[in-house]
Formats: sequence, C-alpha cells, structure tokens
Amino acid sequence: MIILIQCSDRVGLVAAISGLLSGKGINILSMREYVDVEANRFFNRVVCEQYPNPEILINELRSILPEDARVDINTEPQKKIIVLVTKEYHCLSDILVRNHFKTLGAHVQCVIGNHEVLKDICERFEIPFHLVGHENKTREDFELQLLTTINKHSYDYIVLAKFMRILSPAFVESFPMQIVNIHHSFLPAFAGANPYRQAYKRGVKIIGATAHFVTNQLDEGPIIEQQVIQVDHTYTAGEMMKAGKEIEKGVLAKALKMLFEDRVFVYNNKTIVFS
Amino acid sequence: MIILIQCSDRVGLVAAISGLLSGKGINILSMREYVDVEANRFFNRVVCEQYPNPEILINELRSILPEDARVDINTEPQKKIIVLVTKEYHCLSDILVRNHFKTLGAHVQCVIGNHEVLKDICERFEIPFHLVGHENKTREDFELQLLTTINKHSYDYIVLAKFMRILSPAFVESFPMQIVNIHHSFLPAFAGANPYRQAYKRGVKIIGATAHFVTNQLDEGPIIEQQVIQVDHTYTAGEMMKAGKEIEKGVLAKALKMLFEDRVFVYNNKTIVFS
Amino acid sequence: MIILIQCSDRVGLVAAISGLLSGKGINILSMREYVDVEANRFFNRVVCEQYPNPEILINELRSILPEDARVDINTEPQKKIIVLVTKEYHCLSDILVRNHFKTLGAHVQCVIGNHEVLKDICERFEIPFHLVGHENKTREDFELQLLTTINKHSYDYIVLAKFMRILSPAFVESFPMQIVNIHHSFLPAFAGANPYRQAYKRGVKIIGATAHFVTNQLDEGPIIEQQVIQVDHTYTAGEMMKAGKEIEKGVLAKALKMLFEDRVFVYNNKTIVFS
Amino acid sequence: MIILIQCSDRVGLVAAISGLLSGKGINILSMREYVDVEANRFFNRVVCEQYPNPEILINELRSILPEDARVDINTEPQKKIIVLVTKEYHCLSDILVRNHFKTLGAHVQCVIGNHEVLKDICERFEIPFHLVGHENKTREDFELQLLTTINKHSYDYIVLAKFMRILSPAFVESFPMQIVNIHHSFLPAFAGANPYRQAYKRGVKIIGATAHFVTNQLDEGPIIEQQVIQVDHTYTAGEMMKAGKEIEKGVLAKALKMLFEDRVFVYNNKTIVFS
Repeated sequence: MIILIQCSDRVGLVAAISGLLSGKGINILSMREYVDVEANRFFNRVVCEQYPNPEILINELRSILPEDARVDINTEPQKKIIVLVTKEYHCLSDILVRNHFKTLGAHVQCVIGNHEVLKDICERFEIPFHLVGHENKTREDFELQLLTTINKHSYDYIVLAKFMRILSPAFVESFPMQIVNIHHSFLPAFAGANPYRQAYKRGVKIIGATAHFVTNQLDEGPIIEQQVIQVDHTYTAGEMMKAGKEIEKGVLAKALKMLFEDRVFVYNNKTIVFS
Repeated sequence: MIILIQCSDRVGLVAAISGLLSGKGINILSMREYVDVEANRFFNRVVCEQYPNPEILINELRSILPEDARVDINTEPQKKIIVLVTKEYHCLSDILVRNHFKTLGAHVQCVIGNHEVLKDICERFEIPFHLVGHENKTREDFELQLLTTINKHSYDYIVLAKFMRILSPAFVESFPMQIVNIHHSFLPAFAGANPYRQAYKRGVKIIGATAHFVTNQLDEGPIIEQQVIQVDHTYTAGEMMKAGKEIEKGVLAKALKMLFEDRVFVYNNKTIVFS
Repeated sequence: MIILIQCSDRVGLVAAISGLLSGKGINILSMREYVDVEANRFFNRVVCEQYPNPEILINELRSILPEDARVDINTEPQKKIIVLVTKEYHCLSDILVRNHFKTLGAHVQCVIGNHEVLKDICERFEIPFHLVGHENKTREDFELQLLTTINKHSYDYIVLAKFMRILSPAFVESFPMQIVNIHHSFLPAFAGANPYRQAYKRGVKIIGATAHFVTNQLDEGPIIEQQVIQVDHTYTAGEMMKAGKEIEKGVLAKALKMLFEDRVFVYNNKTIVFS
Repeated sequence: MIILIQCSDRVGLVAAISGLLSGKGINILSMREYVDVEANRFFNRVVCEQYPNPEILINELRSILPEDARVDINTEPQKKIIVLVTKEYHCLSDILVRNHFKTLGAHVQCVIGNHEVLKDICERFEIPFHLVGHENKTREDFELQLLTTINKHSYDYIVLAKFMRILSPAFVESFPMQIVNIHHSFLPAFAGANPYRQAYKRGVKIIGATAHFVTNQLDEGPIIEQQVIQVDHTYTAGEMMKAGKEIEKGVLAKALKMLFEDRVFVYNNKTIVFS
C-alpha cells in the first residue's frame, strides 16, 4: 500500500512518520521524501505492507503532522480511467494495448470521442466507446452530455488522449487534478493551436510534447512529464507532426505510469514526481 | 575548399554544378544538397580540392545558376572571431581552451568584456582583452566604443559568449548573420531575462539552450543549434542555472563548429545545417 | 519512385547520374549521396517522379556507372512483411496498430509465432496468425515448417519482433539482408541471452536496444538503429526489462521506417542510413 | 555536513537514524535512502547542519545500526584531488578551468603526467605539474615513482583524466575506490584499447563514455556515470573520437560532481548515486 503525505516542513517529520509506522509493525518497503525549501513544504511517499484499517492510520498520521497535512493512502494498485479522444489514434491505441495486456496500471472504463473514427479500435479491444458529438450544440450542452456520460462510470482520472476541444472552467473545476492532457509541444513554447506549424516556422531544432494536469489556464497546468527529439531543416511541418506523435505517445505513457503508481504530488502549480 | 550555393530550385541544378566542376577537373570530395520544397529553394555544399582561381569559378557557377543565386567559396579553413563577454566564464573558457589547442576551427582575435572579471583568464591564454564598460555611458557611446574596438581587428564572426547587454538595431545591422549568441533557454520558451527563474516557476521538466544568429527581433534570430537536459522538482532555480551552463557551453561549441566548417545556410529566418 | 545506387567511387558520378536523369526529363525531388572514403564506395539515393520503364532506366544507369554498380529502383511505396514472434506483445502490437492505420509503410502479410499467446491480438486486427511450434521437433523440422509457412506469402522483409529462437545458418542464408531483428541490448554490449540481467549485474547507467539485419554471426549483423535510456541503481533487472521494452518498440519502429522508405544501404557489415 | 550510511536492511532504520539526529537537535536538511531489496542492503545520505563532534555522532549512529554498518561523516565540503594525464587536453582543461573558478567542488593538488605536453596548460593555471615518464623503466619503477609523487600531496581521490597506462593490481589496491577513470566507450562495449576504431568497424549508431572506479578487473570497476551520443555512417573513426571527447569531458565532470558532493555509494561492484 502507498502513503502520500504533504505538509509544511518542520524538524523530525521523517522520524515521526517512520516511528509511527514501525511502532504499528508496518514494514516500510521504500520511502522517498523531498522538501521544497523555498516553499517550506514536505513531501513523502511510503510504500509499505498493507494495513487492515487505513482510515485509522490516516487519522493517527494526521495527529502527529502539521495541521495543513494532506494524507492519502492508496490500497488499490489499479486505477480506473476514462479516455477522451477526437480522431488521432496513436495515444489511444497505445493505452488500449497496454490496458489489454494488463501493463497500463489502470483499467480503461470507457472511451468517449467527439468523432466516431476511433470507435472501431475500441471495439476491437472490447472497450465501450461513447460518441458525444460537439456539432450543432452549445458548449454547455456538449459538456453536459460529456458529464452525463462520464458519470455513468467510476474513474480516478480522465485522460485527454488528443482530445481537441477546449473544456470550460466549470467543467475543469469539477475534476481538480484529475484530468491529464497531452500537449503536442514542449510547453511553454508553442502553447495554443498548431504547435508543429509554429515550430516549423520558427525553425527550431528540437520538438517535444508535454503531459500536464488540466487547469483553467490553457496549457498552463502542472507539468508531469516532457520529452523532446532533435529535428532539422529537412522536416516539413507535417514530418514534425509525425515525429511529434511518437513523442506524444511516449510522454503520455510515462506520465500515466507515474500517476498510476502514485508517484506524483502537486503543489504551487508544479509537480513533484518520485520517479 | 568549400562551395556554398543557394538559389531558386529548378530541374538539373546538381547535374549542372557537378558537371561544371568535373569539367574543370575539380575532384568533389563530398556534396550535400537540400531543397526546401515549400520555399522552392535549393541549397548546396560542395567540399572539393582547391582551385587556383575561386573568383573565376564563382562567376562560372553563377552563369549556369538562376539569377538569384548566391555563391560563396571558402578557401581558408580557419575563421577569425571576436568574443564578447560579461562575467560568466564557462562559454569563454571553453572557447579559449579549444583556441589554445587549435581545435576550435577559428582564431580568437580578441575578447571584449563590459566587465573586467574575465580579463585574467584571457591573459592566461595570451588573448588580448579589451574592457569596454557600459556604465555612465549612453548606449550610443557604449556601442561606438565597441565598434571602434571591434574594427581594430579582422574577423568573420562576433560571438556573444554570455554577453548580457542588448545591442541596438543599428549595431546589429552592421553585422548581418555575423553575430552568434547563446541564449540560456530552449527558445522560444522563456525568451527575455531570467529564463531559469521562469523555468523554475513554470515547473518544466526539461531545460535547454539555444545558439542563434542575432537579428533585430530580440531572441528571434535564426536558430543554429539547441540542446536540452532533463531536470526535476529537486532543482532550484540556481541549480537549473548551473545545469544550464553545461548545456550552454555544449550548444555554443556545436553551433560554432557548424559555422566554422561552413555548414550553415540562412534563409527565411531559419538555418539549414548540413551537420 | 526511389533509385538506390552503390558502386566504387570515381570523379563525376553525381554529375553522370543527375545528367542522365534530367536528360530523360525525370524531375529529381531529392538526392542524397555519400562516399565512404576509406572503402572508396559511393552511395546514392534519388527520389524522383515515376518513370514508365524502370528496367530500361536501370540498364542505362549501369552503362554509365562502374562495373560493380548495384542499381535498385523501387516503384512500389508499400513493402510486404512477415512478422515472427514468440510471447512478448509490445513490438508486435505496435506494428499491428501502425499496419491497421496504414502508417507502417508496409503491409503485414501474416504473423508466425512459436507460441500461441499472440494469436488473439492478431485476430483482433484480422491478420493471419500461424502457429509453428518448436517443441518436440528438430531444428531442421522447425525451420522447414517455418519456411513452408513463409513461402505461402509474398514478402520483402521478415521482421523478428522478439522471436526468441536462434535461426540456423542455412535458414538465414535464404534471406540475405531481408531479416530484421530487434535485440534487447545496446550491442555489442550484452550480446546473447539475458541482456537485462547482465546489464543489472554490471550496474550500467544506460540500457538500450538495437535493430539489425540478421546474418550468421549471432548478434553481429549490420546495425540499422540504436537507442538508449538512462537507468539508475533503483532499477531491478525486471524494471530494466520493462524500460527496455519501450526502447525496443521505438528502435524497431524507427528501423522499419528507414527500411520501408528505402533509406538503408548495407556494405562491409555496416549500414548507411539516409535518415 | 553530510552523513553516509550503508548497512544490512532491517525495519525501522530511517526512524532510528532520524530519531537520533532530531534527539540531538540536528536539523535534517535533506535525506535520501535506498534499499537494494535483492542484496538486503540499506543506503542513506543525510544532509544536516554541522555538529561539533562528528566522531561521537558516528559512534552513536553505529550503536543503533546493524553491526556491519559503515558510517562516514563529511564536514569538509571541498575534496582534494590529484589528476593523472597522458597527452589529451580536453578532460584536464575542463577540470583546471572549473578548479580555477572554484566550481569543481575540489582542489586540484597537482597534475602528474607521463608525457610533458600538458605541463604548459597546468602552469597557466598555476597548478604543479610533475613529469613521471614511463619510458626506459620497469612498471615497478614507474609506479614507485608515481606513488612517491602522489604521497607528497594530500588527496581524497586520484582522477585518471585520459591517463593511458594500465596500473598494476598492487598500485590499484593501495587506493580502494579512490581512483576514478574515464573510459572512452560505453562499457562494457569496446573495453580495452582503441574503442573508437572498434566502434567504427562495428558500425554502431551510438557512442559513449563511462566514468568508473578503477579496480583490478580492467574496465570492470563500478560505473559512476555514462552518457552517449548518436553517430551515423558519415563518422570516420577519427570523427567518432572527436565527438567522443566531448562526451568524455561531460561524463567525467558529472561523475566528479556526484563524487565530490558525497552522492556515491559502492556495493557489489555497483554504485548507488543519489543524483
């Protein structure tokens, strides 16, 4: 089981936490801690043997920690996710294949698309696909239908696997740090639309992709993972896009792995990732 | 000797050029060409044996090429450079060491600093150092003194090796595609001042550096080389800066190598680099 | 259409080839050439418009080239491949997904497995799967059955996508430079069995994967592509293997892309890749 | 001050250590621990405020730890090093520049060369250079003279910065885990002499460098850091060597940084690096 703690820093936190756990006979398998000195913030991830009553443990931990402590215990190794897509297959297929072979670290509950093109690949893997079209609809109606569809399933995270609609503040606020997006550039460079076209015009020698939590600042949410590749003058904007898709797939896979293994903390619009 | 050609593209350019050269008995050691299809632009770099009269060869080449052809022949393997610095030693030292051991591909004619701290390291390598302070001076006066100092030397390129003053349009225009700058971020992310502080605040997982030609759009000139490294939440802004310096040094070294070996074309505010 | 030429080097080859092509009114879209000076060997890849009679063109090209010239013209953009597998799904699934969405650059004709576990994923994509078990069989019988199965299909290349049987010299010789293997290490380090275990024991800080042509020297065939990732002391042998699979998938995908786009030459047990 | 602990693992070690430290009012600034589960080995690095009597603290720590515990406390941020070289300047110059600008994390006590060519660069930085030639000498005599020269200085580590002589077992045993070497390949590939020639002949697509502790198995000591770069068919063996030197310089710099900051543990011929 995994314990995630974040709170104000003070002397003796590690001793107090590990003392409490070993006092209860809970064997610590691994422990990572980090202090953001500038923010005076303590982050702690403990992997330990299962304990029969996690709720009681949370309370006991809280009683020895600063008042602002946030303590989460995850006893369930498999997360549940809902995937939102538009037309591009590369990220979704990668998720579906890993889900199928049980190496994703999560169960895909369903896929929701605003176009129908990816229905077929979902059906091949026996994953429910829901079409929620955005055409001839107000954004309110579109998002209402999204919400209704989402709420028919249980989930820990919503993954935007190349979902090409911007979500409203109201929608995003319903899922704080639960929506993960893959952006097709090395943010903050080329935020917004058509990043590969922008990158091509600027003549950059490196392109990248960014997986981040979605907040109400467009493309400004906490970054989980970024990767890049070298390109050169021989790449057209289209070839940059093709090369970029490989990176997008890899970055999203890495970010989801970190998330599903409970390795990601968020604070001050940044992530702490115990990779 | 190295021939660089750029012109509008049309059928038969490679045949025409290589035909002309082999007709004159000039052995081609290597040949690289690239066509920017979108811009209909042809770029060609030929390494061949020395030819006694390059001026005549340029004219003959022009006569068989489109009217807009630009032909350069470089018979001199060693470039001459002037290096401008402020206080940071890492890029300058790397250049001085390579210069000293004759692996830079260029001769450092002199170093000009707007502070005195790097005078000592120049003297250790017997490279003239000129102090051109900017304090208590108008920018006009400062740049005039820079120009006067520069013009006492011969040079092919001016290298801004962490020179922390912004140069005026008039100054920059005097050296078209002759000034190379190292910018301490992965442009276009974090243009302007304090990029490491910006990167730290944004919580990026990768930082980088960019070597580019200086034009009158700040940090917008043609990019020659970019490199990055992974960082994580444990990096303070200061540690990002430290890690960034290693990259800056490497990126500038790579860009200068490309430039000094005549591997760089500029067109449409982008570079073609035959690396 | 794509023309691949390799022959002894001599003055004027590029002029001769491009002259012949432009003389026939064939527009050259792009041209890459490379001379291995040490081996005095010339390599040339030309992308040009289709020409109605490639056989005649091959003969004309041969007539102007050195006697040892090898000229290939490929007018068919899509290759045909057969994929051999054992039990691991990651490389095969990646190939099947790209094949399904027509971005592989080749058609998968069938998959042959010496175990049955990957039959299901093939069927989901409607790709024929043939089980050719190796148990209770001599290697001769096993390979005979492989050959029989292969020969029921047409193919340009055979891809070993984690096929864990060593093929006999006789078998390999039947497919010169037609079999591509993905090896789970950064060759030549850790050739042979259990490379991740070897890498773990040696405490390396980087692991990799290698795509190469199969020849009769085990793990010694010409290397097409290699990639690596950083690992550290926290990786168990099992985690190295997991991380390695991501690289294997990417390296094989890149090597196949190069191959299917006719960008790979082989000479002296090495490849020239015009990437 | 930095505390390094390694011992057999058992429940409660982190609690015991951090309890003891906070009991003495020592503020822990950061703490990293790692358990090698396969070897049942616990590694712990604590950065904390200075404590007036480290010897007493070591004893107290030992009294609460398993019997096989090794506890080191480093109160001195600057290490002392001796650098051994032959003829190549790139690694040495990098060390001398950092030493000069006080960013190496260590003081270079002297440089010992078996050739005289690098004397000049040392003198430019006012670092003593000792010539210990190997010609017309038995290895015993050569190493005796090395030892005599080394022992005139105080040092924590001996850095082989492209020192091209193989040291005898007797010599190496005198400096257990104190000698760091930079090997010009991605070990274990291309161990031994002429790695770039070997890499060129094998046609690899990546070359690298390895910084490792020197033990009596040639090129088999614990690896501290490895890095690589892509190369391709256009690299001659000489160009691979040139590109490799850049990597060597970077790898050695990174390894020394880790070492000088007390981030490296050795166990079972492998390193644990808390980077």
